[in-house]
Amino acid sequence: MLEDLARIGLDPSTGGYLRDAWSAADLTLREWFRDQAAQRGLDLHEDRNGNLWAWWGDSSGEPGVVTGSHLDSVRQGGAFDGPLGVVSAFQAVDLLRERGFTPSKPIGVACFTDEEGARFGVPCMGSRLLTGVLDPERARGLADDNGDRLGEVLARQGRNPGELGADPETLARIGVFVELHVEQGRGLADHDCPVGVASAIWPHGRWRFDFRGQANHAGTTRLEDRDDPMLAYAAKVLAAREAAVKHGVVATFGKLRVSPNNANAVPGLVSAWLDSRGAGEAEVRALVAELSEGATVSEESWTPVVDFDVALRERVAVAAHRALGAPGGPGMMVPVLPTGAGHDAGILAGAGVPSAMLFVRNPTGISHSPEEHAEQADCEAGVAALAGVLEELCR
Amino acid sequence: MLEDLARIGLDPSTGGYLRDAWSAADLTLREWFRDQAAQRGLDLHEDRNGNLWAWWGDSSGEPGVVTGSHLDSVRQGGAFDGPLGVVSAFQAVDLLRERGFTPSKPIGVACFTDEEGARFGVPCMGSRLLTGVLDPERARGLADDNGDRLGEVLARQGRNPGELGADPETLARIGVFVELHVEQGRGLADHDCPVGVASAIWPHGRWRFDFRGQANHAGTTRLEDRDDPMLAYAAKVLAAREAAVKHGVVATFGKLRVSPNNANAVPGLVSAWLDSRGAGEAEVRALVAELSEGATVSEESWTPVVDFDVALRERVAVAAHRALGAPGGPGMMVPVLPTGAGHDAGILAGAGVPSAMLFVRNPTGISHSPEEHAEQADCEAGVAALAGVLEELCR
Repeated sequence: MLEDLARIGLDPSTGGYLRDAWSAADLTLREWFRDQAAQRGLDLHEDRNGNLWAWWGDSSGEPGVVTGSHLDSVRQGGAFDGPLGVVSAFQAVDLLRERGFTPSKPIGVACFTDEEGARFGVPCMGSRLLTGVLDPERARGLADDNGDRLGEVLARQGRNPGELGADPETLARIGVFVELHVEQGRGLADHDCPVGVASAIWPHGRWRFDFRGQANHAGTTRLEDRDDPMLAYAAKVLAAREAAVKHGVVATFGKLRVSPNNANAVPGLVSAWLDSRGAGEAEVRALVAELSEGATVSEESWTPVVDFDVALRERVAVAAHRALGAPGGPGMMVPVLPTGAGHDAGILAGAGVPSAMLFVRNPTGISHSPEEHAEQADCEAGVAALAGVLEELCR
Repeated sequence: MLEDLARIGLDPSTGGYLRDAWSAADLTLREWFRDQAAQRGLDLHEDRNGNLWAWWGDSSGEPGVVTGSHLDSVRQGGAFDGPLGVVSAFQAVDLLRERGFTPSKPIGVACFTDEEGARFGVPCMGSRLLTGVLDPERARGLADDNGDRLGEVLARQGRNPGELGADPETLARIGVFVELHVEQGRGLADHDCPVGVASAIWPHGRWRFDFRGQANHAGTTRLEDRDDPMLAYAAKVLAAREAAVKHGVVATFGKLRVSPNNANAVPGLVSAWLDSRGAGEAEVRALVAELSEGATVSEESWTPVVDFDVALRERVAVAAHRALGAPGGPGMMVPVLPTGAGHDAGILAGAGVPSAMLFVRNPTGISHSPEEHAEQADCEAGVAALAGVLEELCR
């Protein structure tokens, strides 16, 4: 099924995907989701925040067992991050039906809107709005690179931006949520195991650093007369790496805006975004504090640690283990691993929804890149594990 | 007259100008030029490369005395770089007429197209095409940030891109060229003099540095697994500054392109443009050679030193001195200064056209920035000097 999506939003010059939320590519993916639901006779529901739900069974009664992920991508992302979870969800439904399984609770397949935040800057937008942790007024006002605000974009797509926000009715239908995702590191490759279970999502934050100087002519301004913010930025990049090693966290300057960005001008302003995450909040905070001198720093987002429910994750791990027939070898359990990546499952967990995650092995650990990968056999193991978990959670 | 142009292409949020060649702002400026020529009864001619010429007298006979500059800007540039030379040219004509001067040779006011190269990356496009140093095939194929090629852009503006290229007929009409320009450094401010004359244009070049790494997830990729090209770039920025001090040249990383430029991704590619200039070619070349390790470096442009004709520049300096009544004080001559900035006058000089430049004092020396400035009295001194020079060159 992933092959159905292989060309949607593909940048043929790089092999990467451009699937910004509410772009033409995203709308095509949403149509594909509706079509998959219809083919399986699942009831399709789009909630007030644009999240899609395909229900097997009557979702209006008992809270259901929900799985799924997202279809949007980071810019120049890979084929698996998001779509693997959605495709595996439909395939797990197919597998359960082939086995003649009749669920005792409704089973839902979810597609969350704008998980990556590539367009409007806020990741997990769909789940943050659904759970009420993101102010809908703020969301409507977020602008993309063209200056188009989310409210206008939604209105152009025939949605009512006035309806954005906390949606307790939709949320109440989720009895438990399990998100399957391609692993974004090499934990499973190192464990030599196709499938794993998430223990926690590291706390993480994003900070904007503004380095101000004086725009000037690159040819006529003497070195001693320059106030070149690129020098301060460059020193900060190197300092961030040192501080990350020291504090045992990760820190990245991956996004940059230079003004005026002319080859023949000393810049007047360099704005750079620092992403930092680690096992502990204190270490991440210490790194940011250490780096804050010489720049104007503003916190754009902060997500506290998510510790997935221990009893649920053990239940998920045992069910996955059984479904795969002890994949790690005799006596080896399915690995339970933390992750540095944010997910809708983390947002739901934070809102009190019992949530868990399954990871599928990524041979190189490369993520948010066209080189992200999962072998076919591992994807099938993921579907088998997910089907086993859904069956277990319906008990 | 500069005030007539104050709103054209202005970015009100910064006070900077956006006057890319062939943009709506540029077309408005070109209309303004035609209008100024018409108001003075000057004959307007647009050549095959889009340069504009306004002639006082019959330009088809003896080669003329030409002055002028350009109307386009760098992005977020100031009000004076270019327009001051065009406005002063018209005002010098007015001054000569007020004095009842009758030129013995045709006097031309020139407006060169795309001097800054902000849109298509090649500075002095109009004069490079006119003199045949830029291949018209290459020029037609140059693309702007939207992927629009110069050939298409010209065709949309009703020009014939097939006609681009060396134009010996137009060139032969220029007996001598004098460009007035706001100074782009603090030489005149340090000399306490409103007007100066150019001695030379430093050799300068532009190099693209590509730093390649591996795009990856900013949260899940361990520091030891990263191949982050931003670190190599940052080290290079600091090394460039050190090397510039050592070699006595200037070096600037002012333009940058990061891919994918996501806050949550380690970049896969950082492309950065180095601009370097100095009094001697050897020192600039040594700097670039020293910095070339660890990146793929390609030379995008190289402009050799321009030494303005010594006899002509002395004649210009003496005429300016007389016109201003010894502005530097008794016994002080008009300062003769080198510059690190490229100009159409340098391109014409390289093509064998006797050329010279007048500079008008810039109190802070800031250039390519909204803070670029020249006092009204100094602008008037520039016009008086230019009128005196035109009179002298008509002898």
